[in-house]
Amino acid sequence: MPLNKEIQPGDNDELTRERLQATFDTQQMAAVLWDSDLARKRRELAKKVDKLTVLHDSKDMAFMTREEKLSENARKVVQMFAHMADIVEDPSDYAEVFHLSCNAIGHEGHPLAVHFVMFIPALQAQADDEQKEKWLMPALSLQLIGTYAQTELGHGTNLRALETTATFDKATDEFVIHTPTVTALKWWPGNLGKSSNHAIVSANLIIDGKAYGHHNFMVQIRDENTHKPLKGITVGDIGPKMAYNASDNGFLGFDHHRIPRRNMLMRHAKVDKNGAYTKPSHAKIGYSAMVHVRSVMIGHQGMFLGAASTIAIRYSLVRRQGEIKEGSGEVKILDYQTQQHRLFPQLARAYVFMFAGKEVRELYQKVLNDMEKGETTLLADLHALTSGLKSVVTHLCGAGMEQCRMACGGHGYSRASGIPEIWGVAVGGCTYEGENMVMLLQLARYLMKAVKEAKKGRSLGRLVDYLLLPQDKHSLIGRVPQGEYGPHLAAFEHIARRQIFKVADELAKLQDRGMSKEIAWQKKAVELQRAARLHTRFYLAACFHRKVQSVVDGRIREALADLYHLHLNYELLDMVNYALEDAYLKADQVDFIREDMYRLLETIRPSAISLVDAFEFTDRELRSVLGRRDGHVYENLYKWAKESELNRADVRQADLQTV
Amino acid sequence: MPLNKEIQPGDNDELTRERLQATFDTQQMAAVLWDSDLARKRRELAKKVDKLTVLHDSKDMAFMTREEKLSENARKVVQMFAHMADIVEDPSDYAEVFHLSCNAIGHEGHPLAVHFVMFIPALQAQADDEQKEKWLMPALSLQLIGTYAQTELGHGTNLRALETTATFDKATDEFVIHTPTVTALKWWPGNLGKSSNHAIVSANLIIDGKAYGHHNFMVQIRDENTHKPLKGITVGDIGPKMAYNASDNGFLGFDHHRIPRRNMLMRHAKVDKNGAYTKPSHAKIGYSAMVHVRSVMIGHQGMFLGAASTIAIRYSLVRRQGEIKEGSGEVKILDYQTQQHRLFPQLARAYVFMFAGKEVRELYQKVLNDMEKGETTLLADLHALTSGLKSVVTHLCGAGMEQCRMACGGHGYSRASGIPEIWGVAVGGCTYEGENMVMLLQLARYLMKAVKEAKKGRSLGRLVDYLLLPQDKHSLIGRVPQGEYGPHLAAFEHIARRQIFKVADELAKLQDRGMSKEIAWQKKAVELQRAARLHTRFYLAACFHRKVQSVVDGRIREALADLYHLHLNYELLDMVNYALEDAYLKADQVDFIREDMYRLLETIRPSAISLVDAFEFTDRELRSVLGRRDGHVYENLYKWAKESELNRADVRQADLQTV
Repeated sequence: MPLNKEIQPGDNDELTRERLQATFDTQQMAAVLWDSDLARKRRELAKKVDKLTVLHDSKDMAFMTREEKLSENARKVVQMFAHMADIVEDPSDYAEVFHLSCNAIGHEGHPLAVHFVMFIPALQAQADDEQKEKWLMPALSLQLIGTYAQTELGHGTNLRALETTATFDKATDEFVIHTPTVTALKWWPGNLGKSSNHAIVSANLIIDGKAYGHHNFMVQIRDENTHKPLKGITVGDIGPKMAYNASDNGFLGFDHHRIPRRNMLMRHAKVDKNGAYTKPSHAKIGYSAMVHVRSVMIGHQGMFLGAASTIAIRYSLVRRQGEIKEGSGEVKILDYQTQQHRLFPQLARAYVFMFAGKEVRELYQKVLNDMEKGETTLLADLHALTSGLKSVVTHLCGAGMEQCRMACGGHGYSRASGIPEIWGVAVGGCTYEGENMVMLLQLARYLMKAVKEAKKGRSLGRLVDYLLLPQDKHSLIGRVPQGEYGPHLAAFEHIARRQIFKVADELAKLQDRGMSKEIAWQKKAVELQRAARLHTRFYLAACFHRKVQSVVDGRIREALADLYHLHLNYELLDMVNYALEDAYLKADQVDFIREDMYRLLETIRPSAISLVDAFEFTDRELRSVLGRRDGHVYENLYKWAKESELNRADVRQADLQTV
Repeated sequence: MPLNKEIQPGDNDELTRERLQATFDTQQMAAVLWDSDLARKRRELAKKVDKLTVLHDSKDMAFMTREEKLSENARKVVQMFAHMADIVEDPSDYAEVFHLSCNAIGHEGHPLAVHFVMFIPALQAQADDEQKEKWLMPALSLQLIGTYAQTELGHGTNLRALETTATFDKATDEFVIHTPTVTALKWWPGNLGKSSNHAIVSANLIIDGKAYGHHNFMVQIRDENTHKPLKGITVGDIGPKMAYNASDNGFLGFDHHRIPRRNMLMRHAKVDKNGAYTKPSHAKIGYSAMVHVRSVMIGHQGMFLGAASTIAIRYSLVRRQGEIKEGSGEVKILDYQTQQHRLFPQLARAYVFMFAGKEVRELYQKVLNDMEKGETTLLADLHALTSGLKSVVTHLCGAGMEQCRMACGGHGYSRASGIPEIWGVAVGGCTYEGENMVMLLQLARYLMKAVKEAKKGRSLGRLVDYLLLPQDKHSLIGRVPQGEYGPHLAAFEHIARRQIFKVADELAKLQDRGMSKEIAWQKKAVELQRAARLHTRFYLAACFHRKVQSVVDGRIREALADLYHLHLNYELLDMVNYALEDAYLKADQVDFIREDMYRLLETIRPSAISLVDAFEFTDRELRSVLGRRDGHVYENLYKWAKESELNRADVRQADLQTV
């Protein structure tokens, strides 16, 4: 049995020969990437989906209108829930259900996505017991389909400026929900436009003329039977987007719409019938939901980049173009150093982003457990970490996936490659759940606090312990025996620490000169972001290091170490100016890093296909003609094209009429 | 009369106040960007298009299926030609007609695009007089609609490997055009799928069993009356792409399809009825068409980035989010340093790319004139220059436009922003007309030749003269009076020269150690690309310098100089490691560059809107709700959304049935 488990009879010979070079067991590597339990579950559920034709794409979504996409995925999601118990081992296991959804539905959205991912969790977290009694069962049985309506046309990031109002009317014991301006329209919530009949609406609570800030309210928006919008409610779809076009992101406006007082979610804050307001026990409570989404996002982004890498690397082993030596025959494009340099660093990033996702989810679980005990100290650490990771990871994923797409040449540009759609989905993450630039500044704020503590010899949290350590003057890269990468990781640490202290000093200097704290912050905002990025990239490198150390199997560890070392070299070169500025690194050391990087590209080359096969994406999940497991690309591109909507008739009637 | 000419009554006050701060005349700046004659023509044709409702979008293309897009743009292009004489001053002026097309049709393609841009020019350049007589008039009068079919499913960049054959049959005086494999299918040609009835087909010429390489053949593919594919011909659309979906890029296969011998385009190479082959007078002849497209591309890419900058900067002056000082009110997002740092460098690039486009088109014209006289020495220079520019400019445009889109937050992700579509169009340029990675290596080859000459004290061409100059040891940045930027430009030159010589030395060393030239090249491919990029970025900076110097009006020159200095600082920081490695720059100088960059962001801030207004894009052309000249963004986003295809009915029938 070959080590690469993706080999099947009838495959493109080129790929089989590549796969026979595997130095490690791809299923064992999958267990490292996904955890062994989940890796097994993914394989098993994929087999079951294969047999259930009701869960198969009726045609490629790229050939569909938005109407058709919505219908297709509504059909799928209903079928998915109908068969859930037969397919997954544990329907309450979020990760397992997610992977079922990747196979059956994909990433363009479906009418119940926000219902399950945000509406029900928000009910669970924010409704009191009586409210749960009332709404949770109907929601679970899909009588009541809900969305979560927070963002408005005029405001996203700055929640305090949301304009929708919920004014308490003591006389009738009701809230009056109102949209005072066009900019106050709820805008963007998923599944709001057409699918949902209820929404949890964020609105500024007003009692006796006093504003209490935004709180959440359960509002029915459409009739349960006719599905028509209720009186006083304006609702619709916000129109086509870059991706996610099977989701009906919507707008929502209220004309003095009345709801019972008890429709305010009252687990934490409360309003009684006399209009007396009780504030939540502590302010950070709302926080954890967003942190949760961010912690899940990191791993998903890694998965998206992994999918794009899989497509590009497999295709680069099928595609031959040009000769390295004239007359010696065309070579696989992955044999070019330039192609390796384009793709392998993205592959390494996909790996480390998945590892970081796992670490962050574990930390989140720990924070949750702590919070149950009333302990919230780690929450600020987690918030800072996820803010930085969310921003750095989504940015690098977007840019990396574009590299993967372009590495596929012209065919990467076709929707048949599958990359344009997942790229569109992935880059949405740069904006939602906290805009990246704002997130970096939130981490920077934490880092500046950490500097203050460090100067007093104290650490603000485990993740910034390294700020207490002294700086080395010179790097040991290239001065220690070949194969030792400790100095590389130390360089990440050095660079991050230097920039963090440097910008802290600069801020202090500006304030010493009489500038206000806010203006100084504004003048150093870009440098603060740089500090946040460098801190995060150090975290990522260290996370990769921890993962490699934790692997027992020698062959897996060796393959992983090659990727890790490539990552160290590549990322270090990308930020090397920071280490050159204070002469921590010398020119010969930079050359050493470069040469070692080029060497590693060659080392990784024979394992490339096995490293991507280890993600174990099914063809059904990848939805890519270029990235097919069997490597039969060209004949299937032709087959795919023939199914395109424009080929339904040989001659377009319009061509005869107008031209 | 205010200096900013875009002010109109009824505009959003925020924008009017911004525009009143203009320090220069926006129409004068437009004359610098477009040339005064073209700037005037653009304004005049836009007014005429405003009055011609047949040239207006019937609805936003984002709401259309591909079928509808094709029909819409077929309608438009017919109307455009019908009214051409009333709208443009000179229908033979490519630039004027292009801008008409930007207003009336946009960038998603139309059924006659390749017909005019490639088919007719190819006929003009490659058909002999008798052939022109036969085909040119029918083509100009649209009896015959043609495309240019070169790329195949299996081969793009490596033209020598194209598989389609044209075998001469002496007995019948015909060529037999044949597609021997699936990978030999013609794939990608624009307008091939549905619209064209003729194609100029690139095929490997075979006479008496001997292959003569690829030549061009005129092939009728569809019946002129029924528009049905002819017997022996398989043709169709290749399916949806990231963008350009109003273009029917197609596939085309031949089953031993016969055409008369005289359908080979015979201006240069010839085959007589006895099968005797005459080769073209010189090999570089086919070259110039591709160089032409590339030289036009540079300016267009600058225009795309300019459009994205216009959208993002205008929107950033309408959008308010967050407070710099608590309680002082929400600020325009362009007031944040982070937003300025995200957008202004893109704006500066848009300017310099447009300037470079103009320089390159002028050089192309000079080369053409020279070629008429049989002089081809400059052609290699031009080819090298356009190869580098094409690659660097398309890459930076793609990344820059993504920054512009993300700078618009969530609404940037909506198709209403207009950026996703033009981004999709622009990034296509990374691949077509020569894949970027390959293009960089072509420039690198030229640079390595130039080093050899330089070592003998000779210059290979004007653009590499600087290789003959000695290297300075230390930069004068920050050591000369403030406001002098000569040392910055010198740093670009220094960095490029150092990397070019460094990689040349490394190549030589590998060969000295016995490595073959080809393998050494392959081992240094990434470093060679770096050399090509640095050379090109030096060219761009120098081009910006030349432009600023050439401006007479003091106020225009001052505004332009600020952008130029920002460009110098920003780009230099992006490549600063190369200058730190050999201690050409010191840490304090890098800090100086940073501080100066942040200072310039503040300087440019009040002029930002006038700098984008100077592009004089009409709303019709921008097709962006966020980028509207009048700044009335929110009410129009709402209006736009209501027109979305999913809002045709309040309730989707499918929602009632499936959920």
